[in-house]
Amino acid sequence: MYRTHTCGELRLSDAGKTVTLSGWVQRTRDLGGMTFVDLRDRYGITQLAFNPGSETQQALVAQARTLGREYVVQTVGVVKERESKNRNIPTGDVEIVVQELNILNGAKLPPFTIEEETDGGDELRMKYRYLDLRRPNVRSNFELRHRMAMEVRNYLSQQHFLEVETPVLIKSTPEGARDFVVPSRMSQGEFYALPQSPQTFKQLLMVAGFDRYFQIVKCFRDEDLRADRQPEFTQIDCEMAFVEREDVLNTFEGMAKHLFKSILGKEFNEPFQRMEYDDAMRLYGSDKPDLRFGMPFIELTGTAQGKGFKVFDEAELVVGINAEGCAGWSRKQTDALIDFVKRPQIGSSGIVFVRWTEEGLKSTVDKFYAAEDLQLWAAAAGMQKGDLLCILAGEQHKARKQLNELRLHLGDLLKLRDPNVFKPLWVLNFPLLEQDEATGRWHAMHHPFTSPIPEHAHLLESDPGAVKANAYDLVINGTEIGGGSIRIHDRSMQEAMFRVLGFTDEDARYKFGFLMDAFEYGAPPHGGAAFGFDRWVSLFGGRSDIREFIAFPKNNAGRDTMIDAPSRLDADQLSELGISLIG
Amino acid sequence: MYRTHTCGELRLSDAGKTVTLSGWVQRTRDLGGMTFVDLRDRYGITQLAFNPGSETQQALVAQARTLGREYVVQTVGVVKERESKNRNIPTGDVEIVVQELNILNGAKLPPFTIEEETDGGDELRMKYRYLDLRRPNVRSNFELRHRMAMEVRNYLSQQHFLEVETPVLIKSTPEGARDFVVPSRMSQGEFYALPQSPQTFKQLLMVAGFDRYFQIVKCFRDEDLRADRQPEFTQIDCEMAFVEREDVLNTFEGMAKHLFKSILGKEFNEPFQRMEYDDAMRLYGSDKPDLRFGMPFIELTGTAQGKGFKVFDEAELVVGINAEGCAGWSRKQTDALIDFVKRPQIGSSGIVFVRWTEEGLKSTVDKFYAAEDLQLWAAAAGMQKGDLLCILAGEQHKARKQLNELRLHLGDLLKLRDPNVFKPLWVLNFPLLEQDEATGRWHAMHHPFTSPIPEHAHLLESDPGAVKANAYDLVINGTEIGGGSIRIHDRSMQEAMFRVLGFTDEDARYKFGFLMDAFEYGAPPHGGAAFGFDRWVSLFGGRSDIREFIAFPKNNAGRDTMIDAPSRLDADQLSELGISLIG
Repeated sequence: MYRTHTCGELRLSDAGKTVTLSGWVQRTRDLGGMTFVDLRDRYGITQLAFNPGSETQQALVAQARTLGREYVVQTVGVVKERESKNRNIPTGDVEIVVQELNILNGAKLPPFTIEEETDGGDELRMKYRYLDLRRPNVRSNFELRHRMAMEVRNYLSQQHFLEVETPVLIKSTPEGARDFVVPSRMSQGEFYALPQSPQTFKQLLMVAGFDRYFQIVKCFRDEDLRADRQPEFTQIDCEMAFVEREDVLNTFEGMAKHLFKSILGKEFNEPFQRMEYDDAMRLYGSDKPDLRFGMPFIELTGTAQGKGFKVFDEAELVVGINAEGCAGWSRKQTDALIDFVKRPQIGSSGIVFVRWTEEGLKSTVDKFYAAEDLQLWAAAAGMQKGDLLCILAGEQHKARKQLNELRLHLGDLLKLRDPNVFKPLWVLNFPLLEQDEATGRWHAMHHPFTSPIPEHAHLLESDPGAVKANAYDLVINGTEIGGGSIRIHDRSMQEAMFRVLGFTDEDARYKFGFLMDAFEYGAPPHGGAAFGFDRWVSLFGGRSDIREFIAFPKNNAGRDTMIDAPSRLDADQLSELGISLIG
Repeated sequence: MYRTHTCGELRLSDAGKTVTLSGWVQRTRDLGGMTFVDLRDRYGITQLAFNPGSETQQALVAQARTLGREYVVQTVGVVKERESKNRNIPTGDVEIVVQELNILNGAKLPPFTIEEETDGGDELRMKYRYLDLRRPNVRSNFELRHRMAMEVRNYLSQQHFLEVETPVLIKSTPEGARDFVVPSRMSQGEFYALPQSPQTFKQLLMVAGFDRYFQIVKCFRDEDLRADRQPEFTQIDCEMAFVEREDVLNTFEGMAKHLFKSILGKEFNEPFQRMEYDDAMRLYGSDKPDLRFGMPFIELTGTAQGKGFKVFDEAELVVGINAEGCAGWSRKQTDALIDFVKRPQIGSSGIVFVRWTEEGLKSTVDKFYAAEDLQLWAAAAGMQKGDLLCILAGEQHKARKQLNELRLHLGDLLKLRDPNVFKPLWVLNFPLLEQDEATGRWHAMHHPFTSPIPEHAHLLESDPGAVKANAYDLVINGTEIGGGSIRIHDRSMQEAMFRVLGFTDEDARYKFGFLMDAFEYGAPPHGGAAFGFDRWVSLFGGRSDIREFIAFPKNNAGRDTMIDAPSRLDADQLSELGISLIG
């Protein structure tokens, strides 16, 4: 037996016991006479003490002195109360007086320090991910992930959701993102696809009468990657039959509250805030506003135009936000804001500022606007003395997006985005469809199985752009955690949807005939939601990079640099699959 | 709101309540005056009553008569005590006096009956799997699966196992079974592979100090399929650090006992039986013996040879089993046994029978063997009066395999294989390696990361065939439910293993360099196990076909006939991936 106890469990009450521990050498301290080794495992650190009393002890001390960092050792010894206690760790009252020491495995010098703060860069950490994962703050991300997965399943199971595994080898039906595909050996020339989500399968489970389904499931998207995107990601995927929107929102609001409470100890006694998509765009320029702080948009187009300031006069929209208490910002600080919005990713031409100082309202465009004009703006914006109004102008959609970026940036600067404060929000009534400006084609904003809100159903073919979707997103602190919709469950409406999206009948039947067939055999009304599990865990973990919460992530080129994948195949493997490489 | 209650929850105590139910029409009975509809959902069946009292009621009755099977309806009505109660269902004391009826969706006539016993053949059931899943006995398989998954996770989580998701897009390292591969768009000409198991990742998690890992995870094998094989299957995958074999066996025996108790209500107070691989092969001709019944093999080679019976004289092995109480079997019955073993899948040339009837021992080879010879056999076999000894002969390995098949067949015929009786067994000390007869190459019997038993480690390169693996299988009722091993955690031993398996150093480094590197940075001793979840659920469900426990299985050609996958890709998709089809 390698151990009787872990390195995290011995206490003063264990004094006198003979124990066996195994773990890694965190560090060795040689204090002249005494030698101490901190032995580490997942559960904690226990101090081993080597005291050169007898001859055997001297041999042990000599052996202890050979131990390098990260050596794996087993030790037998007696638990003893420490003379100088360490109040920082739960085992700090005791040490082990070592009687026996076995080196189970040596360790080369790690390529970076295995401490909370490491000197390892991203590339090195990913190549030696198994060492990076030893860092306690990294490991705790996975303990959090484990607990969240358990709580999600326990909650949903108690709510009568059945966990059902849906297939990974499915059919390619590219909509939006690209599918990863898998050549079939048994049906040469044909391919499976990896699911972007189990959408159609969960709908079929509703047709099958499973009533409530869930799964924490890997999904796949062959997209160009960003920090918060991985080619494989994990989704909490759910579906319910015989529900209206309100039923779905209540169920998953319940799940979110359960997670807040059980994982973070935070109680939400009030219902989550709700906001129409149109309002979110109007007030925050985003369909996922961060509501940890205010700063709603104030439209100033009417009062700002017609005074001879060309930038405003020619703009489709003049819109501002009020930065409370920032009237005293220096020129350097406001210039930095201008630089921020002028960055190519944001692309604004500049900011007009109005300060309310001791001397009254003062703007950067004073030569066009009288004091009364500025007072109108200040009133509209609810400005107080000491505030700074920041105004952007331009094409509607762009100006809002730019101001959203500025608002979030100001939120960061003013420390209004505390990672320990959580503001959940349901965003409702998204547009069902988006039009591609170039081609004029309609695209489903969520996916083609989303139903219109009932009162818009009749407009689907006659005025698709006016139709709101019976869809909802859960947004927490400006991050879209998940979303869903009430689905279409009627064959003729699904067919109409495919027509609007430009599918030929044949194409629709080839790709989704099985689903439309299923709708004819007693499909119940149904709806559901899916939540980005990686993202939700990272939100609860207070970090924005989801890779910190994925044990073996891919880099931005889609590579696993540790195992060096993807890689070349043998010619035999290719020919067995009936494929060859181009070029 | 579509419902206030499910179709399974109303009781006599609810009488008088106005309720709303939604569900499927199971059947409609028109008893002249009264019309009854059985409304079904996942939770049960509730009777709806239509009584043509008033004019409104008459309209409702007329509407009820239009309802076809599997129509989806919503109804509002009052709960009333039934006059003639149905004791077979929990809701049988009440019915709903219908006040309102809404048809939510119609249903075409299903292609097969949606009842426990269906007239649908396998092909039709799979094409309309969403209807097949409505059958209560099929759905209950998934309720079982759900409960088992929850219990596995809760048990392991309580034992401090951390659930960690390992990647699905990994590197192709074909050993034994073929990998499914995924062409990379970002690295054209390169491929990911889908994991046959998360083996190397879970070992890296041990190197990472995660201590105890588990995952219920999809794995993939591109093999030709059988009834109990699917291209994608689910594994309970586990690994532990600082363990010896005994620790692993105890942990997973604990898990199995927990499942037996929590799922089936069966207590196992005794430790599971254990058997050496060599004994299993000798006594049952199988590494997964079904111990629900005895019938161990009796070797008769010594006593059977040298009496002039050529079949026995020329055989490497003469081996029998004693079928208790079968001495009176008719010629037709024993001929059927002979036909059974002569089938090409089994390939024996015949059976020699010895009966112990009222007239004493009598064999089908009486002209070669005297009564004393038969008495020797009977004594060796522990025969009693009334028993039937069945003897096969031939090459060692083949004769044992054939007799194993005969033994299982006799077990079936004699009803000794009760699906409600469970006999778990650990099979220990497998050979580490198997030699390919044609090429002379050594293959890992489990996988190349399995360690030898400590006392055989020194023989690895000098006498590979003699080395026993520190491996174990959990067998229940003749089904291998899972297995595992103590792993190699030392770079030099892993290198030696790869040499024995015929890897060049370069090949070993290319495929598994990351793992061997990891072994040099403080790898702890570790071991683990993996269990076939589909198979375990089907065993608990009392069925042998794992497809009954997979929501959307593939057929024997690897196709999903419902969604019609795999399928062709667009030329664009292929060229973006840098591949083309051969021929």
